Formats: sequence, C-alpha cells, structure tokens
Amino acid sequence: MEGRSLLRYSFFLFFTLLLILFTLSNLPSPPPHQAEMLDCAAHSSWCTSKNRIQSKKPDFLHKPTNPSPRHHSAAVPRHPLDPLTVTELNRVQKIIQNHDFFRNKAYALHSVVLEEPEKQVVLRWKKGESLPPRKAAVVARVGGASLVLTVDLSSGDVVRHEMGQVSGYPTMTVEDMTSATWAPLASAEFNRTVVERGVDLADLACLPISTGWFGKSEENRRLIKVQCYSLKDTANFYMRPIEGLTVLVDLDTNEVIEITDKGKNIPIPNAANTDYRFTAQNSYQRLINPISLEQPKGPSFTVEDDHLVKWANWEFHLKPDPRAGVIISQAMVRDPWTGDMRNVMYKGLTSELFVPYMDPTDAWYFKTYMDAGEYGFGLQAMPLDPLNDCPRNAYYMDGVFAAADGTPYVRSSMVCVFESYAGDVAWRHSESPITGMEIREVRPKVTLVVRMAASVANYDYIIDWEFQTDGLIRIKVGLSGILMIKGTTYSNTNQVNNQEDLYGTLLSENVIGVIHDHYITFYLDMDVDGSNNSFVKVNLQREYASPAESPRMSYLKAVRKVAKTEKDAQVKIQLYDPSEFHVMNPTKKTRVGNPVGYKVVPGGTAANLLDLNDPPQTRGAFTNNQIWVTPYNASEQWAGGLFVYQSHGDDTLQVWSNRDRAIDNKDIVVWYTLGFHHVPCQEDFPIMPTVSSSFDLKPVNFFESNPILNIPPNFENDLPVCKADASA
Amino acid sequence: MEGRSLLRYSFFLFFTLLLILFTLSNLPSPPPHQAEMLDCAAHSSWCTSKNRIQSKKPDFLHKPTNPSPRHHSAAVPRHPLDPLTVTELNRVQKIIQNHDFFRNKAYALHSVVLEEPEKQVVLRWKKGESLPPRKAAVVARVGGASLVLTVDLSSGDVVRHEMGQVSGYPTMTVEDMTSATWAPLASAEFNRTVVERGVDLADLACLPISTGWFGKSEENRRLIKVQCYSLKDTANFYMRPIEGLTVLVDLDTNEVIEITDKGKNIPIPNAANTDYRFTAQNSYQRLINPISLEQPKGPSFTVEDDHLVKWANWEFHLKPDPRAGVIISQAMVRDPWTGDMRNVMYKGLTSELFVPYMDPTDAWYFKTYMDAGEYGFGLQAMPLDPLNDCPRNAYYMDGVFAAADGTPYVRSSMVCVFESYAGDVAWRHSESPITGMEIREVRPKVTLVVRMAASVANYDYIIDWEFQTDGLIRIKVGLSGILMIKGTTYSNTNQVNNQEDLYGTLLSENVIGVIHDHYITFYLDMDVDGSNNSFVKVNLQREYASPAESPRMSYLKAVRKVAKTEKDAQVKIQLYDPSEFHVMNPTKKTRVGNPVGYKVVPGGTAANLLDLNDPPQTRGAFTNNQIWVTPYNASEQWAGGLFVYQSHGDDTLQVWSNRDRAIDNKDIVVWYTLGFHHVPCQEDFPIMPTVSSSFDLKPVNFFESNPILNIPPNFENDLPVCKADASA
Repeated sequence: MEGRSLLRYSFFLFFTLLLILFTLSNLPSPPPHQAEMLDCAAHSSWCTSKNRIQSKKPDFLHKPTNPSPRHHSAAVPRHPLDPLTVTELNRVQKIIQNHDFFRNKAYALHSVVLEEPEKQVVLRWKKGESLPPRKAAVVARVGGASLVLTVDLSSGDVVRHEMGQVSGYPTMTVEDMTSATWAPLASAEFNRTVVERGVDLADLACLPISTGWFGKSEENRRLIKVQCYSLKDTANFYMRPIEGLTVLVDLDTNEVIEITDKGKNIPIPNAANTDYRFTAQNSYQRLINPISLEQPKGPSFTVEDDHLVKWANWEFHLKPDPRAGVIISQAMVRDPWTGDMRNVMYKGLTSELFVPYMDPTDAWYFKTYMDAGEYGFGLQAMPLDPLNDCPRNAYYMDGVFAAADGTPYVRSSMVCVFESYAGDVAWRHSESPITGMEIREVRPKVTLVVRMAASVANYDYIIDWEFQTDGLIRIKVGLSGILMIKGTTYSNTNQVNNQEDLYGTLLSENVIGVIHDHYITFYLDMDVDGSNNSFVKVNLQREYASPAESPRMSYLKAVRKVAKTEKDAQVKIQLYDPSEFHVMNPTKKTRVGNPVGYKVVPGGTAANLLDLNDPPQTRGAFTNNQIWVTPYNASEQWAGGLFVYQSHGDDTLQVWSNRDRAIDNKDIVVWYTLGFHHVPCQEDFPIMPTVSSSFDLKPVNFFESNPILNIPPNFENDLPVCKADASA
Repeated sequence: MEGRSLLRYSFFLFFTLLLILFTLSNLPSPPPHQAEMLDCAAHSSWCTSKNRIQSKKPDFLHKPTNPSPRHHSAAVPRHPLDPLTVTELNRVQKIIQNHDFFRNKAYALHSVVLEEPEKQVVLRWKKGESLPPRKAAVVARVGGASLVLTVDLSSGDVVRHEMGQVSGYPTMTVEDMTSATWAPLASAEFNRTVVERGVDLADLACLPISTGWFGKSEENRRLIKVQCYSLKDTANFYMRPIEGLTVLVDLDTNEVIEITDKGKNIPIPNAANTDYRFTAQNSYQRLINPISLEQPKGPSFTVEDDHLVKWANWEFHLKPDPRAGVIISQAMVRDPWTGDMRNVMYKGLTSELFVPYMDPTDAWYFKTYMDAGEYGFGLQAMPLDPLNDCPRNAYYMDGVFAAADGTPYVRSSMVCVFESYAGDVAWRHSESPITGMEIREVRPKVTLVVRMAASVANYDYIIDWEFQTDGLIRIKVGLSGILMIKGTTYSNTNQVNNQEDLYGTLLSENVIGVIHDHYITFYLDMDVDGSNNSFVKVNLQREYASPAESPRMSYLKAVRKVAKTEKDAQVKIQLYDPSEFHVMNPTKKTRVGNPVGYKVVPGGTAANLLDLNDPPQTRGAFTNNQIWVTPYNASEQWAGGLFVYQSHGDDTLQVWSNRDRAIDNKDIVVWYTLGFHHVPCQEDFPIMPTVSSSFDLKPVNFFESNPILNIPPNFENDLPVCKADASA
C-alpha cells in the first residue's frame, strides 16, 4: 500500500503544481513596479487588469474617451480639506519607510488620507491665507498590530494614537483582497475539488468575502472566506457559482485554514444568457431615439482649485475618499436677500453600508458585508462611463489613493459633477377656472448632481448628492449590478416542496437569488447657520375638539420636542406616529421669529429586523434606528467603528449614542440610514435594473421665504438649436 | 326713530346696490354665448378670464406659444375608449334638450363623459373593427334630483339608473363654482363687512369652499361656503385673506344663508413680496445657463388616432377626464422574447384627493376637500406651459368637456407626453479592483412621462405617469402652488403663548400656514397577463436558526400569503412588519415556475390619523388603509363615492371593501393612497417649491429576465450637436 500511495501522492502533487502554475499565469498578478502605477486604470494590470474575455467591439462603436487626464504629479493643495496630493503621498511613504515603527519590517498601509485640521481651524480659514499644517492620517498593519498614526508632512513627526481595547481590523487593502483570491490555489485539495466540479482552473474567478464575526474561534487572526465561480463562456461569472465551496484563508499569511465543500451535487449553472456586455449580445433592441441634456452655453458650475464646486446658489468642497467614496464639506447656500453664503452642512459622507444576506446555511450565513469599513467604498469606485454614467457636460474628478506600500495611484474619473433636468417643475401656479385669472407661472427644476458608483464585487451602488436651487439636498442611492446568487439542484419551482426554504427566488435554472437587505448609513455633520444646533422632533399628534368647540371631532397638532440627549434622538420611524425631524439653530431666528433650520425628510426606509443579539446585528447596530444624533466628535465618523473588519460591535454608533451625551444647542451630527429589503425577482437576472431610494435635507424656516421666487422661466430663445451628429 | 331709520336704510340700500353694480362689472361674468366657447382658454372670459392685473410683459420675453390647436370639430372616435368628441357631445346635448326628463325644465349637466363599453368588449376589440355602440354617461341635476343616465348616441335612448339611497351630490359644475363666488355680493351685510375690513369690493376675490358634511342641519340642500380675499396690489390674493368671514350659500339658488364674521380684529396681511409672477418681480436671479432635453431625431413616441400612445416597449390609451384628470387604459408592455404586447393594467386614474386641514375653528373646520369628486380634478387642470411644465418635444393633448348646459368646450394642452432623461442609469456594472476585469457597462435611463397639472384654486397638483423600459410604471404627485393661509393678529412668534395653538406656522407678518394633509388615491385595475389576478402579501418575517444549525441567530424569510377576500387586502404599511405586495396571475408561470406578477412598491406614505368617526374621516374613509383590493365592479371607480359632495361616507371604498368579497383569481382592482403631511414653513411663502412623492408598479417575475439587457449604451455620435439660439 505504501508504494502505490506514494506514487499516487507524487502524481497528484505534480498534477496540482502544474495546475497552479497554469492558473497563476491567468490570474491577476501582484502589484507591478510603482512607476507604472500612477494611473491605475490606464497602466496597471493590478487595479483593472486586462479583460480576459476578448471583447469583439465593432469599429463603428467608438465610445467616448474619458476627459484628458489631469497632471496629478504637479498638484498642490489649496484648501485645508484638499486630499493628499501625489507629492504629499510620496512624502508620507518616505517618512513611513524611514520611521522606527516600520524600518526593516514587513508592513502594509491600510489607509493614508488627509488628517483634516480641527473644524474651527477650517471654519476660520479664508482663501488666500496659508494652509494649516498638512498632516496624514495613516492606518497601518505591522507585526500583527494595527497602528493609527498622524504623520506631520512638514516636520516628518509620526504620532501614534492609543486606540484602547477595540476589536477588529482596518479596512482591507486592495492587495489583501487580490491575494486572498489566489490563496486557495495553493491547496491541492481545493484544486482537486474545483476540477471535480468540472471547472477548469483557468476559468476560475474567486471572491474574497469578509467573514464577519461569529465568536471566539475567529479571534486573533485576520480571516477571509474565498468562494469561486466559473468564468467559462461569460463575463458574468457571478451567475456560475461553485456552490458550497468555501475556503477559509488567513489574510496575513495567505494560508488556507479550512476548506468546506457542501455542494458537490449542485451543478454550475449554465452560462447562456448571462453575459450583459453589449459586445456579447447577438442582437440589440434600440427602443428610443437619442436624447441628451444639452447646454449650449456650457454648464453653470465651476470647480475651483480642483475641489471647490460653485453652482447657482451653492458652494461646497468635494473630494474622493478611499473609505467613504466621496466627502462633501462646507456646503453653503447663498441667501438671496443678504447675498451671504450660509452654512448648511460641515461634512457629509457615506459612513457605512451593511448588507446581511438571509441564509443561515454554511456557505452563506457569514455574508453580512460592511462595504465601506471592510472593502473601502471609495477603493471600489471605478471610473465612470461618460455619456452613460453621467450626461454630456459632466465634470470628472479623479481619486488619488495610496497602495499598501504607500505608493500613490490615480483612480481616474471616479466622481462626476453635472447638471440635471428631467423636465420637472421647481414651482408653478395656474389660476383655475374658479377665479378665472389668466395666470400660468412655471419654473423648470434644474439640479446639480455629484455622483460616484462603487462596484463592491457584484453589486453596484450609485451615490448621488443632488443640490437644488430651493436649498434642498437630496441624497440618493441607486442599486444595480449583479446579484450574489446561490447554486441549486432545482430547475423549476415545481420541484420545491416549500419555496420559503430556498432563502430566495429561483431566477433561472439552478440559480437562486438570495434575499438580503442593504443599509446605507450617512454621516451628516449639520451646521445650520453655525455649528451649534438642536434636534427637534415635530410630532404630529391627534387632538380632539369638544362638540361645543367645533363640528369637527379631531385634527393634528404639531408638537415640538427638543432632544436633550442622544437617546432622545434615537428615532424609529413610525407611519402612525409621524414626526418631522428638524436640525435648527436655537440662537438664530427669522424675521417673524421661527428658528432657522433644515429638516431630514426620510425616504427609502427599511427597518432591520435581525435579532439585536445576532452577531451580525451587534456589528451592524448602527442600523437599529433610522435616525441618530450625536455630539460632534472627530473620532466618531464610521458608524461601524474605525476597525470594522471582524469587529465585535464594540465601537459602533449605537455604543456611542448610548452614552446619552447632551446634544441640545451643541455641534451635532445627524446619522440617517437608507434601507432596502431585496427579494430578488427574475428581472434581476443576469443584471439588475437600477432601484433607487433617497432622503432629503430640506430648508425649514431657513429662508425668509421661497428663495427662488424670482428665477426666470424658460423662454424659447434660451434653448439650444440642435441637429443630429453629422457622423451618425 | 322710524323716519331716521328708514332714511338710513334707504341710503344704505342705495350704496349697496351701487357697490354690487360696480363689483359685478369687475367679476367673472357668467358663461357667454356658446359659439364663443369651443376653445375655452382662447376665447372665453368664463373659463379663463382676462387677468385683471395688467401684466407688464416686456417685449423681449416672448414666451413660446402652445402647439397649434387641433381641429376638434372634425374629430371622430377611433377606439372604444376614446372620449366623446365635440360632435358627440353636441349630439348628447340635443338628445338631453329634447328628452322628457329635461324638456322645459331648468337643469345642469354635472358630467358628460363616454360610458365605456364593457371591459370584455373592449378587450376583444381590434383595430380596424367597427366601434362598439357609443354611449354617454351623464350625471344631471334637475328639479332637485341627481340623475345618472346612459345616453345612447345612435338610438338617442336615455336610460336612468336607480342609485338607491345614497347621500351626496354630483361634482360641482364650473358654473356652480363661479356663481358661488358672486353670490355673497348680493348681501348688503357681506358688502358692508368687506368694506369695514378696508377692502374695496372691486378688489375682492372669492373662493367656493366645499362644506364637507357635519350633520343633519346640512342635509337636503346643496351648500357651499364662500371666503374672500383682497386682490389689491398682488395677483396672489390667497395671501390676503379676509380672515373669519364665511358666507354659507345655497348652490342651487345662490341665496346667502348665513354670514359668519369672526375675525374683525385680524388685519388683511400686506401685499408686499407676495406676487410670484415673473413680470411682477423688480429683478430676477438667473442662477443657471440654459439646459434642455434635446432629441435631434425627434421624440421616440407616437400618438396614434389622437389617443393611443406608443413608445419603446409600451403602448397605452390616454385620455383627459373631467373628474380624474387623465385616464390611462390598456397599458401593455412588449415581451422582448415573444414580441407580444402583454397586458399590465386595464385602467389607471386618480380616483380621489382628500385634503383635510387641521384647524377646528369656525372658518376652518370644514376645509376637508375632495378635489376630484367635489371640484373635478380634470376640470381644474389648466393648459400646460410649454418649455416649463413640459420640456421641448413634448406632445400636448387637449381635453374636450361639456359645460353645464351640455355645450362642448376645449381645454387646450391639458396633458403632455414627453421623454425624460435626468442623467440616470438604467443598469450598470463595472468590475471592481477585486476581480480586475476591465468591464464597464452602463445603460442610460430614459422614460416616458404623461403629465397634467390641476390647479384646485390655490394648490397645484402635478400628476405624472412615468413609464420605464424595464417595465416599471412610476406614479408621481408633485405639490406646488399656493398655501391656503390664515390671517392672524400676530406678526412675530414672540407674541404667541403657545405656538401649537396657531394650528400652523407663522410664515410672514399676519400669515399662518395651516397644517394639512394630502391624500391622493389611485384606482389601478391591474390585468397582469389577463384579467384574473390574485393579490399576494410577501411578508418578510424574522426566523431563528438553532446554534447547531448556524452561527447566525436570525434571518428573514419571505412568506407568501394570498389574499382570499377584500379584508385580507386592507393594508396598513408597517416599517417593522414589511411586505411586498404582488398582483400575480396564478394561472401563468415563468419558465422556472414563478407566477408572473407586478408589485406595488409603496412610497410617499403618510397615514391618516383623524378619528375614524370624525365626519370628514367617514367621508375620507378610503384613506384608512394605504392599499385596498376590490373585485372589479364597473360602478366602483370613485373612492369617495359617485356623489362625493356633502356625502355622508355611505358609498366609499371602505364600505365596498367591508363587504369582504372574494378576490383570489378574480378580476381585481388595486387602490393605493399617496399621502403627505404638510406643516408649512416660510419657504412655502408666497408660492411653494414642488414637493413630490411617488409609488411604483414594478414587474416581479413578469419577464423571464431583465428585459433591457440588450439595449445599447449612448455613443458620442448618437448625441446631438447644439449651439445657442441665434436670437439669444
């Protein structure tokens, strides 16, 4: 037995090594030499590698090219909130390399971003003044420890911040994620299983899936689970899972810890009709004639010094961020009567996303993603597609981020800014036949949109910050992309005894779309006419009138209640106990005496129904309410905690809020969570039509009266004269 | 005493008569000779009288003119659902004039519309076949009775329908409304009061306010309450109420029954800064460069035979209606695989609006409007303003209605149809850095919008039916126009002891915006792939997994429950007990076995909190749930009942639904109510920025997969080449 076993073993080993070699040559390679990396999208096979499925793009389909690349090497910061430039990131890299913490050690930089100056410093700063000292906030891993550092760019000083006893790890680096996808290939067992499932290793596409946190066995080790798909005959490998095969990998060593294989009887779903690329279609349906937003005199906004957006009566600072995606700062609106720019919001960003899947089985229970804190919502935001992601005349802004070794790279066209007009009405009035006056006054509604689209593996999140001339800010999330689907032996629902046990919907033969939720939590540091604000619930309550008083029995009264402490401002929205939610400035009143304010207008709400003690929900506890209000604290920006990866939920918005600090007439931060329950349907296969939800920040007694009373209507001679493109 | 009294009395009488004469010459006059009336907007001082405030429109501001008027006199019906033509309305008028019911009697026609053929007849009809017999549904008042008649246009037969013992009166005629506004002038007491308030009778503008119903004293008589405003120095008289002065008028006789004057100490608010017309502004702010939706190859839709709209993969019949505004019929979407047009909705319309104000005092308690059933939502829809109400390339459809004497008239450009593109994304996917594939596939979202805007006195409702190529129908309501405000002695909130007792917000000196709700109830006769459908609640329920089963404690399961009877389908939406609401066809399944369906996706919900026994809420009981489902019944179309005016609530959707009829696998109608709580704010003064809400009808396993997988993206050479207008 021994001889034959050895032979068998050797043969198997040889075969496996061969497969690994073959596979590695087809997989994304590790980061290339840093000289290549500056424009990630254009030059690097690492951050967007060459498409392995050859596209057969016909000649006549010339797509527009992205705007000409800007010269990031020469960029200098001009505003206290400007992100770190290429030069500054290079400086940080140097400082780190030569610092005692890192010299001659293996380390990885998980985040290198501007350490924003103190709020009061920024608020006092005026254009033309020299910038406050430039500092970098660095999160690094070295020798098994997570370091949080401030790097002073002029002095070169590095200060380490004590984080106390918090669980969890920093956001993964892109290198973490890509290296995790190759890790299983080092396992002969894994490779054998894949081949046994009928998948050629050359067709393998693997995804790094954050493990969440479910107990002690997972502690003291950075872990990830890898699941794989077949790329054969489709770019849409997400529709071809090798179901039930889960590889537990050590993120620091890339060691395979455990392989679970539960789905050997489940076929890989067919590739037919899954590819969504235009070039992969046999035919196409042109349903409509071209339509375009045209601005013959050009757009009405400017972007000063690369980051300061000025449009109509708005002005704000805009920057890409590797974790949040985009950060809007110092949003101010012009008062039409005084001409002053008035503060509305000091800072707004996507703080966290929580995406729990609703399947308790082995290969699925841990899928409870935190896309910002685990994957980096900005890191996953890819270049936007001109004329399709954003209309003509859009302005595109690049992201400048740092790789794990500190090398800067450019994510081109990561954010766009454009004006939108859907044919809607800003305000109108006609006189009715009742009064018979000939009046017809209508003003078109034009808005400014800041957009990014993050592709967190399969899912695409489109985040819009939309500014209206009437002072309203709409924050909108669009969901598109591809479902995370589950393989199954079923090809028809008539084979299923109890459909509820599918944990989802049978979308196609052998394909289940698993039920899941999306929660997107926004950080909104409101500064309504100044930093000190109060949060007021304006509760609509049913009141009764006595028969002597009125023939009417009941009516609604608006009862204002100022939230004194954080717990007063933990809001679960109730349809039958409605409130308005005002952020008001108690020290500033309108002419007739109303406190100036903005209100949060909920929309797109979905409540999280997971048990509060369920480990994922402990970590996602920031979704336990739809609205929270906290006192401003520079360290409380990420709703799931700074270290979300494998965290135990000991540093969430819920933990902070339960301190129940005073929030009345303080510098306060409002947190709002948009939610979606998603029960997939066949229309979501193989790629999902966009579903959107939004909520608003809306002036409420902020202006003395309608601030756009005197804007003009459209007149015929304002509008462009257009013809079809001569080349069409 | 007697002599002096007589002298005084005579003097007063003379003075009053003088005032009446003077005033009547300045007020809208009664309907002119019918020859003038065909184009109401263009020719009649009755339905849109000349503006009494001279507009000082500068020469350079030439507004676009409406599209050239169509030749309604020659129109013939071509589809079984086409509205009555001018010729047909003339025929109805003749038949009525000569019928025994009406000959030599005073009568008024409150509604003359097509009596739609039976649903099965319409469904069987094919283009090219002769039309089913054309009939008119007529609601008339004669000799104190309300008659519901069917007039056969070919035979001339008139059939009277027994309505049984229902309360209420038909929708007011426009003549009812306008004559009510003059009625108070016949009262010397009224005129004296007005003058004592400092208002010149020549500056008077009065509104007819439906009384609601509050008890026996109001029975057996058609009543209306009239309140008046000062037009001096502003077109926005709504901001200048003569507060507390309420005149109860008999709608049949125009007799003044009672004058209540409770607000003698309340000043008429100032006119300053209230006029919203562009020509009334001293200056204007041009915040943005022109932007326009341009379609160099023209729009992609056609309107066949005046009413059949075909766009992209959609087709539907569209007609204006005096009560509902617009009616969408036989909405069908093309299946991209079979090429078949598939039924989605047989009929959709705005069934009723309910607008209760939240002030129990004498001049306000009764303000509980039902805008469709009392005023006629279509009757109040005025001509749309090209380039402002609807973008360039919009198609405009006229309404053809009948006056109280049966004379047809044209409401021009009452509805528009246009394609909209806001820069949004129909679907997208980029591959993320994780997989490194170079994929960026994005498709722009273009929609088709059907729009009308009703101005029910002060308020403007913009109703959009928006069709998407992915099969979704969005129904959107925009609120703009002018608040119904209340005069007050207060000029600053610091004079108010308890602001809650204002019943609203102090918006300007002496002006309170009173709290109110808006409920807009839609009738949706869904026919998903056939008339027989079922309503299914797909309830998301928290389930628990045992520790042995999963490290996960909880997850959500989708539990489907078919509504067997109407009460099963009375839905109050609950954030913490969420469901999807499917209308599915139990006899038709997709390839993998899911029943085909559409779901109602709630949005813009607000719950009605009035006491269920409050008289207004008894009448508005159709807002007690957000969703209802009834079996199709041709007589159940108006949620508040056919006779809403002064009704007691004995013929509402709630009454029908409580019969608890079977609805499983039946021809069913879904009712959805959009709601708004409106606590006014200063930004709403003097005219309100539009607030919008919407809900969706969305395919759910209706298509085998994403129906717009193979639409092309935008390419540069598809889009137009534009320049600024040479004349600009």
